Amino acid sequence: MYGAASIQALLDELERLPGIGPKSAQRIAYWILNADKASALRLADAIAQVKSAVHFCPQCFNYAEGDLCDICASPKRDRGMLCVVSEPRDIAPIERTAVFGGLYHVLGGALSPMEGIGPDELHIRELMGRLASEDVREVVIATNPNIEGETTAAYLARLIKPLGIPVTRPASGLPVGGDLEFADEVTLGRALEGRRPL
Amino acid sequence: MYGAASIQALLDELERLPGIGPKSAQRIAYWILNADKASALRLADAIAQVKSAVHFCPQCFNYAEGDLCDICASPKRDRGMLCVVSEPRDIAPIERTAVFGGLYHVLGGALSPMEGIGPDELHIRELMGRLASEDVREVVIATNPNIEGETTAAYLARLIKPLGIPVTRPASGLPVGGDLEFADEVTLGRALEGRRPL
Repeated sequence: MYGAASIQALLDELERLPGIGPKSAQRIAYWILNADKASALRLADAIAQVKSAVHFCPQCFNYAEGDLCDICASPKRDRGMLCVVSEPRDIAPIERTAVFGGLYHVLGGALSPMEGIGPDELHIRELMGRLASEDVREVVIATNPNIEGETTAAYLARLIKPLGIPVTRPASGLPVGGDLEFADEVTLGRALEGRRPL
Repeated sequence: MYGAASIQALLDELERLPGIGPKSAQRIAYWILNADKASALRLADAIAQVKSAVHFCPQCFNYAEGDLCDICASPKRDRGMLCVVSEPRDIAPIERTAVFGGLYHVLGGALSPMEGIGPDELHIRELMGRLASEDVREVVIATNPNIEGETTAAYLARLIKPLGIPVTRPASGLPVGGDLEFADEVTLGRALEGRRPL
């Protein structure tokens, strides 16, 4: 950018964002330059606000603003159901289904010996603490259906089952609206193994 | 986003940016949430800084921070060459060529009767003022090679030629490294008309 050093500084910051290359950064920078001041500052304020107000929920390790996150604080949630996820970002897609009405527990990752992530790096101790003190009827382990996620799920299941709490896992199978023709063999194999009576 | 209202506010602001949909906004929001505080605030500050420090150069209407923009203020530029462009963003690609060492004049758009943009909506009066008071040897009209840009170039050429100042326009033709096979007929036609002896 030629003419003003602070525009270059903005471009540098924008290019550090995920999925933003030089062209997108330039388009966004020009949008900010042309936007009215209040509108552009709302974005700056939203970033600052998130960094000052958001912390981890001490109960479930989701993002939170108050003492607890909105989900843990809600009186409407079923406290007998607990869904274990790897990251806070995994909560949004589950909430959008409106099928699960319980609480969450965010592990903060998944077991990965390759990356040096063992049980002590995840919020597993806190999970076991919740299971010991709260009255949980079922634990749904919704870690990702990949190697790390499956390993984590198996590890947690072995840990939780002795407590006498049922442990479940979302079904693997064909995506709704998908084509048999384009399904990979692992997914289709899982779908066949998990076939259900009609 | 579930758990914290300020995250939703950030998502709303991010989705207003050009080329940023809900998925990109979410990826960027999680990046900001995971980034260390200083790093995230640098982005917020860069936005605020641009909005408070950047204004239009009173001479050429490029973005500027000081009295004049960096280009107008530079003693190294050839003050006898003036390149007319539509928008400040058109200056960066020309500067990158390192072929042009003169000053710029930003019109702030291009003539478009359809959108109600006439000569009075552009910085044409200021351009004529510069040509009357400064010692300009050549005016390069680098408006876009589309209908509005060509119309604007033709209009300006008619206005400037009576002053006895040569007016030029960048050549239209085949992009370097391009394929004849894929050239559109208008571009190839221009390239043939503008053929040069070898």
